[in-house]
Amino acid sequence: MNAPDPLVGEKFAELLARTREPFPASCKAYIPGRLHADLRVPVRDIALTNGEQVSVYDSSGPYTDAQAAIDVRQGLASLRADWIAGRGDVEPYAGRPPVALDDGQKSEDAARLARLRSDAAALQRRPLRARAGANVTQMHYARKGIVTPEMEYVAIRENGKREWMAQYLADADRERRLMGNPMGAGIPEIFTPEFVRDEVARGRAIIPANINHPEIEPMAIGRNFKVKINANIGNSAVTSGIEEEVEKLVWAIRWGADTVMDLSTGRSIHTTRDWIVRNSPVPIGTVPIYQALEKVGGVAEDLSWAIFRDTLIEQAEQGVDYFTIHAGLRLAYIHLTAQRRTGIVSRGGSIMAKWCMAHHRESFLYAHFEDICDIMKAYDVSFSLGDGLRPGCASDANDEAQFAELHTLGELTRLAWQHDVQTMIEGPGHVPMHMIAANMSEQLKTCHEAPFYTLGPLTIDIAPGYDHIASAIGAAMIGWMGTAMLCYVTPKEHLGLPNRDDVRQGIMAYRIAAHAADVAKGHPGARARDDALSQARFDFRWQDQFNLGLDPDTARQFHDETLPKDSAKVAHFCSMCGPKFCSMKITREVREFAAQQGLSEERAQALGLETKAQEFRRQGGELYVPLTPVE
Amino acid sequence: MNAPDPLVGEKFAELLARTREPFPASCKAYIPGRLHADLRVPVRDIALTNGEQVSVYDSSGPYTDAQAAIDVRQGLASLRADWIAGRGDVEPYAGRPPVALDDGQKSEDAARLARLRSDAAALQRRPLRARAGANVTQMHYARKGIVTPEMEYVAIRENGKREWMAQYLADADRERRLMGNPMGAGIPEIFTPEFVRDEVARGRAIIPANINHPEIEPMAIGRNFKVKINANIGNSAVTSGIEEEVEKLVWAIRWGADTVMDLSTGRSIHTTRDWIVRNSPVPIGTVPIYQALEKVGGVAEDLSWAIFRDTLIEQAEQGVDYFTIHAGLRLAYIHLTAQRRTGIVSRGGSIMAKWCMAHHRESFLYAHFEDICDIMKAYDVSFSLGDGLRPGCASDANDEAQFAELHTLGELTRLAWQHDVQTMIEGPGHVPMHMIAANMSEQLKTCHEAPFYTLGPLTIDIAPGYDHIASAIGAAMIGWMGTAMLCYVTPKEHLGLPNRDDVRQGIMAYRIAAHAADVAKGHPGARARDDALSQARFDFRWQDQFNLGLDPDTARQFHDETLPKDSAKVAHFCSMCGPKFCSMKITREVREFAAQQGLSEERAQALGLETKAQEFRRQGGELYVPLTPVE
Repeated sequence: MNAPDPLVGEKFAELLARTREPFPASCKAYIPGRLHADLRVPVRDIALTNGEQVSVYDSSGPYTDAQAAIDVRQGLASLRADWIAGRGDVEPYAGRPPVALDDGQKSEDAARLARLRSDAAALQRRPLRARAGANVTQMHYARKGIVTPEMEYVAIRENGKREWMAQYLADADRERRLMGNPMGAGIPEIFTPEFVRDEVARGRAIIPANINHPEIEPMAIGRNFKVKINANIGNSAVTSGIEEEVEKLVWAIRWGADTVMDLSTGRSIHTTRDWIVRNSPVPIGTVPIYQALEKVGGVAEDLSWAIFRDTLIEQAEQGVDYFTIHAGLRLAYIHLTAQRRTGIVSRGGSIMAKWCMAHHRESFLYAHFEDICDIMKAYDVSFSLGDGLRPGCASDANDEAQFAELHTLGELTRLAWQHDVQTMIEGPGHVPMHMIAANMSEQLKTCHEAPFYTLGPLTIDIAPGYDHIASAIGAAMIGWMGTAMLCYVTPKEHLGLPNRDDVRQGIMAYRIAAHAADVAKGHPGARARDDALSQARFDFRWQDQFNLGLDPDTARQFHDETLPKDSAKVAHFCSMCGPKFCSMKITREVREFAAQQGLSEERAQALGLETKAQEFRRQGGELYVPLTPVE
Repeated sequence: MNAPDPLVGEKFAELLARTREPFPASCKAYIPGRLHADLRVPVRDIALTNGEQVSVYDSSGPYTDAQAAIDVRQGLASLRADWIAGRGDVEPYAGRPPVALDDGQKSEDAARLARLRSDAAALQRRPLRARAGANVTQMHYARKGIVTPEMEYVAIRENGKREWMAQYLADADRERRLMGNPMGAGIPEIFTPEFVRDEVARGRAIIPANINHPEIEPMAIGRNFKVKINANIGNSAVTSGIEEEVEKLVWAIRWGADTVMDLSTGRSIHTTRDWIVRNSPVPIGTVPIYQALEKVGGVAEDLSWAIFRDTLIEQAEQGVDYFTIHAGLRLAYIHLTAQRRTGIVSRGGSIMAKWCMAHHRESFLYAHFEDICDIMKAYDVSFSLGDGLRPGCASDANDEAQFAELHTLGELTRLAWQHDVQTMIEGPGHVPMHMIAANMSEQLKTCHEAPFYTLGPLTIDIAPGYDHIASAIGAAMIGWMGTAMLCYVTPKEHLGLPNRDDVRQGIMAYRIAAHAADVAKGHPGARARDDALSQARFDFRWQDQFNLGLDPDTARQFHDETLPKDSAKVAHFCSMCGPKFCSMKITREVREFAAQQGLSEERAQALGLETKAQEFRRQGGELYVPLTPVE
C-alpha cells in the first residue's frame, strides 16, 4: 500500500488501505481472451479448506489485486487505450477549455479547491472524440458485425470459470425445478462474444464505455446477462468532501457495485468527477442537469440548451459512461401529476418541470434529443433515459403520468437507436408487489426490450431507516422479471446522505436481490455458489462458509460474537442450537441406512432392517461424526 | 416503572424500563366490544403534527400502556379468565407434579435455578383442563356456531379504527390498480365476528389461545387476515439466561412480533417458560421434543411416547398456545433425503429421524397422533405441524422428501380437524424465487387451506450475516401468495444466537415483508398507513414521517446524523439532496398550473398560457413554498 498521502490527507490513505485489503482466502486471477489476446478478465478465486476452489465475478478492480500499484493522484492504468486507438476512428483534441463555473458558483473554500485541482493535475487527459462522420459506440460496431474486445471481455466475464461449477450444474441438469424460470429472457448456456455482439446490436444490452474512460473493465447491462447493481455516491451542499467520495467509490465496488453514479450536487463538482472517473474501473454515470443547474446558480428557469450542451461535452470529455437525461418528461404530462400524493419526486424531473412551466415550452431535452445523440455517439456515452415522473409513493405507482412518460421514453429509444446510441431506461421507485409485473411488462413492450434500470422499487412506504430492505424485495422481483440493473437504496433513503456503512448495507441488500434474481431466472451457474456454500455449511467448514458469503467479515464477526475461539471454526455446531441440537450433524450413516430404506418398505423388512437397527443401537446409536471438543 | 428488582437483577429492570417506553407521539387506546361488552382491543394512536390521528395495529401488550402496572414476578392480568370460565366446560385440577428433570439434566448452577424458581413462585397457577368429554378449542366452538369473545376480539383487531383511513381508502375505490391482488384469498371489506367464526370453523384460520394462557390478547393466523410474524427466542446450552429471554419477549412484541416461540434447548427450560408465558400477551409456541430430549439426556433413541406425552401435558398446563410437532416425518421418507445437499436441517426432524432409524419403527408422533389430539383439545393447544424435511438450501427445495412430508401433513390436518383441533402447517426454509409459487400452491391444495407458517423462505444461500434480507424477499412473496404467518430470520441465522439488536433487525425485516404482503393482497386499509406517511413526507412533516414508520427511533437517529438541529425537522429538504435540489418542494403552484394544463394543448394555448408563464416568471418563478431557514 501507498504511504499516507499528505496531499489528500491521512484519513484518506488510511481508509483506502483498509479498502484495498484482499478478501479472505481469495486471490485475483485473470482469464485471457481468445479473439483478443491481450484481454485479462478479472475473477476472484476463493480457496476452500477442502482443497476446492470457487471463482466469482469481481467488480472490485485492481484495488483488490495485491500486485497492483495504485496512486490515486495518477489514476488507474488505461486498459482500453489500445483497443480504442486501434479502431482508427477517434482523434485527440484540445477539448473544451475549463472555466471556473464548472465547479459551481458556491465553492466557498477556494483554497481547498485550488489544492484539489492542483493535486488532480496529473489526472488531466487530452480528450478523444470520434473523427468527423464516425460513430464510436459499441452498438455501432455491433451492428456492423464487429466483435470488439469489450464484447469478448463481457462474454468471458459473464461465463467466469465454469470448471468448478460442473459438480453443481449437474444437479440442475438432473432436476428441472432447479433450472430457473427465465420469464421470457433468452439466457444462453455459454456466453459467446457473438452473443454479446448480437444483444448489443439489438439494443437489448449495453456496454457503457466512454472512449475517454479507458480505465474501465467492461461489463454489460441487459436482461440476458447477470443482473447488475448500481451504487450512488456524490456529495451534496450539506455534507461530504472529495476524498470521501473517491473512497466511497472504491468501497462500493469492493462490495459489488457494477456501476457507480456520481450524483454530486454541491461544491467542486467538476474536480470531484476528475478524481472519481480516473480512479474508477467501473462505468460512471451522472445526471448532467445537476451540474448545469449549479452553473446557473440553482435557478431552473435560467437553464438553456446551450448550457446543458456545454455540460454534456464537459462530462463526455472527462469520461462519464452514461448520462441520465429526463427527456421523456414533456410539458403536456406535468398536469398528470396534479392528483398525485407526492407529485414529482425525481430531482431532474422537478428541475425540468419547473423550466417547462416557467417558459411554457416543450422541454429542451426532448426538443434537442437528436443533438444530444450526436454528442453521445462522438464519445460512446450511453443514455440512461430518466423517469422524471416516477412514483414517489405506493399510491402514485403505475399511474397515467408514469406510463405517459414511459411511452415517450420508448419513442426516444427508437430515435437513439437510429443513431446507434446505446440506451437504457430508468424505472421506479415505489411500486407495491402486485403492480411490479405490470410495470415490467409495460417497459419491455413500450421500450422494445432496451435494458430496464430500476430504483428499487420500494414495496411499502412505512420503513424509513430500512428502505434498503423494503426495496430489495421489489428489486429481486423485478430483476427476476427482466430488469437488467438495480439501483441500490441505502438505509438512509429519505433521511439523509449515506455514510460508509450505509453504502455497504445498501450494496449487500442489492447483491442479495440481484443474486436472487439470477438464481430465479437461471443465469447459468448462479446457483453454483449457493451450492458450494451450503455444502460447506453441511460439512461444518465454517471458514469456507464465511469466505463464500457476500460479506465474509460480517459473517465471521457475527459467528465470533458468541463463539470466538478458533476451535469453534471446526466445531460441528454453533451457538444457535448448541452442540447437542445441531441438525446438520446427521451424516453418512443416515445416508447408508437410507439407501437401503430406498427399497420398498416390505422388501426392506424382508431384508432384515430390524437387524440393521439393532446393529445401529449396538454401535452406540451415534449418527454423528465425532465432535471436535470445544474448550 | 418498577424499581430495579434485586431478585432478577438490575440489568433486567433497566432493560425493561427502556423497553416499556411509549412510542413517540403515541398513546394506547382500546376499542370496546359489541357482542361482548368487556372487550378492550388495543390499538396505538399516533398524533400527527397537522392534527390528524393515525391508529395502528399493536402487538406490544400492556407494556407500552403507561397506565399499566406490571410486575414480572406476578405476571400479566388475566384478560380471558372470565371468558374461559364462563363457557362452563373447564375444571381446575392439581396438575402434573413438577419433577427436577423438567429443567433438564444439566442445570449446572443449582443455586441460580433455585433462586429463579423461588422468584417464579407467584407465577404458578392451578391449571385448567376440559371437563370430561368436553372440547375447549376455538374451532370446536366455531363449528357449533358460537362466536366467542376471542373471535370478536380478532375481528375488531383486524379492522382497527377505520375512520382515519377513509381519505386514503377513497383512492383505492377510485383506482382499481391500488386495490391489491388477493391471489385467491377472500378478504372481506369489514371483518365481522361471524366471518372470523366461519374462518376458524373451516380451519382456514386459527386463534392460538390455550385456556391456561388467559393473559393473551387474541389474534388470528389465516390467509384472509393480516399477515402475522413470529419471533423466536430461547436460550441454548451455549449462551443466554432467563432474564434475557423475558426481556427479549417484551422487546420482540414491542417491535411487532405477533407470536413468540420459546425455543430454549439449554438449562432451566421449564422455569424459563413459566416466566415467558406468564408475562406474554401474545401466543407462545414451543417445540416440545426439545424439552423431551433434555429429559433423556440428549439421547434421541431414549425418547418415548410416554416421555413426550408427559412433556405435552406439562407445557399445556403452563399455557403454551401452539406446539410444533414433526408428525409428518415418517420412517419411509428418510431415505428421500439421501441425495440432498444438506440432508435434514430441522432440529426436531433430525431428532425424530434418529429415533426412527435407531428403532426402525414408525415415528411415535405419527403413530400417536390422535392421542396428541386428545391432549390438544383438552387445553386448546394448536398444532403447528412441523416440516422436519424442509430444505436447508436452494438445491434441496421442493424435492420429493419435502413434498412427501407435506402430503402427510395434509392427512394429519384432516385428522386434527376431526377432533376440532386448530392446525397450521410449517413451511420452508430455503426456496429460490421461481419455486415459491409452486410451494405455496402445493400447500394450499394438500393441506386444504390450513394456515401456512413459513420460515422465510431464504431465496439464496450466500448471504450469511444478511439472511434476514435474503429471506424477507421470499417471505414477502409467499405472504402475498397466501402464507398466514412468517417466522422471522435474524442477521445471525446460521451463525449464532441473536442478541437484542439482531432480534429487532429480524423483526423489522419481517414487518416489512408482512406489510408488503398485506398491501399486495389488499388487506383493507393496509396501504392507508403508507399513504399517511407519504403525505407527511411530501408535506415535510419530518416528525410525522418518523413516527408513522415501523421504527421511529432509527429513522430519527438516521436523519439526525447529518441534520441534528430541531429546525431541520421542519426544513423542506434533507442532507440527501440539500436545500436546492429537493424535488418534493414542488407545490400547489405546480398543481394550479397543471390544472389549467389539463386542458388540451391547443386549447390551453388559446387560453393564454404563455401569459401565465410570464406572470409566473414575474412573480419570481418560485414554485416552492418559502424555505424555513436552517442555521
